[in-house]
This record gives sequence, C-alpha cells and structure tokens, in this order.
Amino acid sequence: MLRIDILSAVPELLESPLGHSIIRRAIDKGLAQVVVHNLRDYSTDVKHHRIDDYAFGFSAGMVMQIEPIDRAISALKDERDYDDIIYMSPDGEPFTQSVANHLSLNHNLILLCGHYKGIDHRIREHLVTREITIGDYVLTGGELPAAVITDAVIRLLPGAMSDEQSALTDCYQDNLLAPPVYTRPAEYKGWQVPEILLSGNEAKIMDWEHEQALIRTRLLRPQLLEEEQ
Amino acid sequence: MLRIDILSAVPELLESPLGHSIIRRAIDKGLAQVVVHNLRDYSTDVKHHRIDDYAFGFSAGMVMQIEPIDRAISALKDERDYDDIIYMSPDGEPFTQSVANHLSLNHNLILLCGHYKGIDHRIREHLVTREITIGDYVLTGGELPAAVITDAVIRLLPGAMSDEQSALTDCYQDNLLAPPVYTRPAEYKGWQVPEILLSGNEAKIMDWEHEQALIRTRLLRPQLLEEEQ
Repeated sequence: MLRIDILSAVPELLESPLGHSIIRRAIDKGLAQVVVHNLRDYSTDVKHHRIDDYAFGFSAGMVMQIEPIDRAISALKDERDYDDIIYMSPDGEPFTQSVANHLSLNHNLILLCGHYKGIDHRIREHLVTREITIGDYVLTGGELPAAVITDAVIRLLPGAMSDEQSALTDCYQDNLLAPPVYTRPAEYKGWQVPEILLSGNEAKIMDWEHEQALIRTRLLRPQLLEEEQ
Repeated sequence: MLRIDILSAVPELLESPLGHSIIRRAIDKGLAQVVVHNLRDYSTDVKHHRIDDYAFGFSAGMVMQIEPIDRAISALKDERDYDDIIYMSPDGEPFTQSVANHLSLNHNLILLCGHYKGIDHRIREHLVTREITIGDYVLTGGELPAAVITDAVIRLLPGAMSDEQSALTDCYQDNLLAPPVYTRPAEYKGWQVPEILLSGNEAKIMDWEHEQALIRTRLLRPQLLEEEQ
C-alpha cells in the first residue's frame, strides 16, 4: 500500500481535495493512506506554535524554520522507511506523467509543503531527498501542489479507477494525447458528432481515434512524439 | 475587481483550497470574487441530475454532456461579459507565471473543470475560448487545476499579499529563480547559515542574493535566461 505523509503549516487547505470523489474512494478502499500533519505541532514555540521567523539578510518575507520540520520528519522516519522526502518547490524537477507513474510504485512518501517565503535552505540541503514542481509558476504554498501529486499518483493505483474511468486511454500514457470524445445527443444546435463514431464499425473507429490522437499530439505536444523515438 | 466563476461536477473538491489563508483573505478584502457553480444544477435530467453519458464509439469512460455546460455558460454570459472561458485540459496551453500575470489583469473569467473521461469535444470547439493545463500529467478532474490557477492569479492582485509575503522577489518574476533563504538559528546541528547573511552589509548581501539567484537559474532553469535575451 502507498502511504503519503503531507507536512503543512496550513493543513486545512488539504481537507476537501482529498476528501471526495476518486481519491476519497481509493483511500476508503485501502489502496492508499494519506496523513496530513500540522507542522505547528512540532513547533519549538510552546506558546504561539510559530514555525516561521524573519529571513537573514534584508529580504522581505517569513521563512519556515528548520527545527520543526526536522522534528516532524524525524518522528515519521522513526516509524517507517521513506522512499523519498519531497519538497514542493517552484524551482524543483518538473512533475510529469512519467514521474507520477514512478511515484505510484513507492511505498512511503513525505510531501513537504512550503508556505510564506519558503523554507530554510538547510532543510533542502540536508533533509529533503527530492524537489518537485507541478509547473513553472508561484503559488501561495505547497499545499495545492501536494494535492495535485497525491491525486495524480493515487488514481494510478490498481483498483483506484473503475473500467469506465480507465487510465489506459488518458493523455500522456503511451506518449499520445487522447482523441476527442463525444456523447449524446449526436446533434446539438447544428453541431454534429463525427459520423464515423456513429457507424458502429469498431475497427474503423479505433483507426480514427488513433489518427486523431496522433494529429492532436503533433499539433499540441510534438515533443511527446520525439521522446518516443 | 477580478471575478472567477468555476464550473464543476464536484464542487465540494474546491471548498478548502479557496477557504483559507491568503486567497480567503483576498476574497474577504473584496479584491476578488470566486463563485463555484455545480454543473448538476444545469442538468437536463430532472430526476438524477446526471450530466455525463457514454462515449460514442467504443472507448471506455463517461463523457460530460454539452447541454448542461452550454446552459451554465449561457446563464453566466447573460449576467456579464467574460474575458475568457477556459477549459482545464491536460493538453491545453501550459500555465506559466507569465500566463498568471496576464490573467490577473482580467475582469471576468470562467474556469470549466472536466471530470470523468472529459467533456464532449463540441464544447471545446464552440463554447470554450482557451484551454490551459497546469502541467503535462493527468488528474482525476479539472478542479485542482482550477484551484491552482485561482491561487496563482489572486495572489498577484495588488493588496492580496502583505509586504512580508511580497511577490516581487518570487521565483519567475524577472525570469530568475529566488535565492536561498535562511532564518534563525544561524547554526543547527552544525549546519551553518552562509556567513555573508550575518554580516549586516546590505550591499554585499544584495550582490550575493543576486548571484545566487543567477547560479540557481543557470543550474535549474537555463531556459529562463535565454528568454530574457
């Protein structure tokens, strides 16, 4: 079973993304366990449970302290071995479908969420084993990225999705984008579903879908086809 | 004021990411308005409020129907003009800091979240004006991507962040990654903060930070420096 421990200064942000739909059902089925930890519980400040302090130097912004994060990680490592301790960082290694596929084969992962101006750099040098970004943009914290990675990874676990949600024909599996999909009605406001899809000819439809997937990939993500070669 | 309307089949997923911390405070301050709409309210199925149906052809997976989405978009467009109707799609235009900067200058945006196998392709051809992906990976739905875009955009609105959270020294602004940050204690388990940061010499510290930003950018995102030229 895959276990994901998420360390956060604002754990409330993570309640609903993990509490509904496919991810919730996968957790309920026992396919994965996701435990969100409040870093404030590991604060060295007994009174206010602060875990941030002013940055050294002259830059604006509060920085998350090393000790609460070290304590939280140590407490988890005392319980079990972790495959990776991943820091959600805007300048980390890009998250891709292939990274998701690999992470889904792990047993225990820690996802560390930064907030404020970031975390004390010594955490990144000494405690973290991997840094991942979900894209080249800045968010208010690492919580949404942790939710994104958790979602992308858990849906890949065998049994997480029903056949109808099957991941096999998704974008980025087999380095192809998905073909267009259509459902009833066959005509709406004069906009028609491609005739071939109504033909009932399975072989021709599969050819058409593969051709459409190739056309869309060539147009929108040509680099996927290059990776293939 | 920026208004973001999010259309979703699973609106519960969006409760907590928008209900706390910086985004919640920006909304409370009246800097932005975020309205989440349940697409089931626009279902043509009075009894079960279904909004998905089997895909034409032989592919597995349920497809979101055109009519409920057309109804929802039309109802919103009757109320105001929209700058863009954006579909969260894994094969869309990549979301970047520069896209976030541009979106933050808009007035009214619709973010349409797919779920299941995707949405009827005619919606993408006739109703949507733009398609954006937060990264090249597949998620269970467009809700987390919509939350990511909302977060990245709202934090850029003037007044959304205090000086201490200032976005000006963030990664990707000025095409540079952020320099490392440190806070107290200056030594922890033998791991030291770089001496220069303790020197109190503002000019030298600023030089060091700029140099570190350059070094990290060259190492981790060399393409940012090429874009600069």
